Amino acid sequence: MGGMTTLPVTIDAAPAEASCCAPATDAVVDDATAHQLAKVFKALGDPNRVKLFSLITASASGEMCVCDLTEPVGLSQPTVSHHMKLLVEAGLATREQRGKWAYYQPTTGTLADAARAFTA
Amino acid sequence: MGGMTTLPVTIDAAPAEASCCAPATDAVVDDATAHQLAKVFKALGDPNRVKLFSLITASASGEMCVCDLTEPVGLSQPTVSHHMKLLVEAGLATREQRGKWAYYQPTTGTLADAARAFTA
Repeated sequence: MGGMTTLPVTIDAAPAEASCCAPATDAVVDDATAHQLAKVFKALGDPNRVKLFSLITASASGEMCVCDLTEPVGLSQPTVSHHMKLLVEAGLATREQRGKWAYYQPTTGTLADAARAFTA
Repeated sequence: MGGMTTLPVTIDAAPAEASCCAPATDAVVDDATAHQLAKVFKALGDPNRVKLFSLITASASGEMCVCDLTEPVGLSQPTVSHHMKLLVEAGLATREQRGKWAYYQPTTGTLADAARAFTA
């Protein structure tokens, strides 16, 4: 732990700082995957978006008009549209404009796939 | 839509403001459920917590020491402990102090159950 000595060895950019414990780096998801998963979960990390997502996933017709979404959550249409945009950007829904109204369809499997990314 | 007339009727506290569309209130999750689900998803709405959760769920021994978690995510132990606290509070993990170190165990089923709360 005293002075450094220059040795003719090749080292990795990031030296291991703790050798006390069993290495577990193998198990960690990579940065891109972690960001993608976090985006999906963050989109549902809000009670109103949970409600909105539950509404579109429960829709018998497979989609819901934004005009149907405002009343159940008690929010204005611009606020609902903002929340729905985050769900769309996370890949949890798609949006289709038809005439005056936007219609939202849930994307089957995105959430289940994200949950299955973990062993537990 | 002109003047109001007082009528001898019982009304709900929140009048329906839009009657244009099919009512969908039945499908919405209740407030308490929406908050609980949002808490689970919000806890995983961060790339570092996604990585930490993936580490503990992949652990062969069913738990991981906080001393094993710092290196894979490249964060200090206080920061890792903070992230783990949010996972514990969301019901995604449990924490056990043994001597010097805290050990974290994933809670099986919390995430899968949350994902299954939706039809999609």
